[in-house]
Amino acid sequence: MRAEARKPYDIESLTNVAVRVFAERGYDGASMDDVARAAGITKASIYHHVTGKEALLGRGLRRALDALSAILEEPGSNRGRAGARLEHVVRRVAEVTFDLLPELSVLFRIRGNSPTELEALAHRRRFDRTVASLVRQAQNEGSVRSDIDPGVATRLIFGMSNSTVEWFRADGRSSPGELADAICKVALGGLKI
Amino acid sequence: MRAEARKPYDIESLTNVAVRVFAERGYDGASMDDVARAAGITKASIYHHVTGKEALLGRGLRRALDALSAILEEPGSNRGRAGARLEHVVRRVAEVTFDLLPELSVLFRIRGNSPTELEALAHRRRFDRTVASLVRQAQNEGSVRSDIDPGVATRLIFGMSNSTVEWFRADGRSSPGELADAICKVALGGLKI
Repeated sequence: MRAEARKPYDIESLTNVAVRVFAERGYDGASMDDVARAAGITKASIYHHVTGKEALLGRGLRRALDALSAILEEPGSNRGRAGARLEHVVRRVAEVTFDLLPELSVLFRIRGNSPTELEALAHRRRFDRTVASLVRQAQNEGSVRSDIDPGVATRLIFGMSNSTVEWFRADGRSSPGELADAICKVALGGLKI
Repeated sequence: MRAEARKPYDIESLTNVAVRVFAERGYDGASMDDVARAAGITKASIYHHVTGKEALLGRGLRRALDALSAILEEPGSNRGRAGARLEHVVRRVAEVTFDLLPELSVLFRIRGNSPTELEALAHRRRFDRTVASLVRQAQNEGSVRSDIDPGVATRLIFGMSNSTVEWFRADGRSSPGELADAICKVALGGLKI
């Protein structure tokens, strides 16, 4: 009785397992059987905690979006020149991406196939718009090149940063801190005047 | 008889439809029913041309990988200083991405869930290794900063470039040429010494 030998699951630890499975197999490619197998419990036990796969997705996406939103509340995102605030946000997004790798990995791949996904995409667009407005302010103060549309610059920065979920391995040669540095150097270095 | 009113499909035009469906819904989320519906023909008619969904995926991935490989054969990728060759490759990858948007979009999202996907990932890794070696040469000749691992720099450049498949819209504000310029400015500008 493998399941009984373990610490019993609660909704948070089940969400941990589910987002890892979704990140590995893709949300559409993953079934509740896959989640149950990874958790080492029966599907029925999972339905004791949660209504289904989309609810688990919703919980994982919520973690990712809450962590991104929290960055915008940090002092470094709100004090000082726009160029420095932008650098703070970009570095913290990279750090949060490594901290919540499966959650962010799932967030970056959703396409709006359900109400849960559509709501998360809307939330993420609001985040991107806030950062784009920061890029525009940094352009206006002269710390970022002005020959690139702020929305395009934002998407390119996060395109680079978000791509790390596809290839970062915790046992690889580069640490999260080194990669966050590299992202800031390349993405923000390229935007400097 | 909607299907008969159209130009009959051949394997190439069916592949066009299939990669668009895979790009929109995700390969795992797309069914042969979706492909048949998008093509306006019956599933049986599709199986007249191709053995199944994985074969259509294989044909789409082959187009993407052939286009990437062809870039490495171009004179601009083989003549002159490494820094200039790197810039040529990065610009051409961005251009090819916009030319073959659904094919590249599908390629960038596969995870190795089948032999077809694994083979394509191996091909793509060889491409990335060639570019990483170009980054290393550009570092050695002093045209690219040396404080970032060449493999990491390659992944960050393509992370930025590849992300465009997620948000580029042909009717959007930026043209493919403008976006390719922006990618070169940011990704390569950030690598400059």
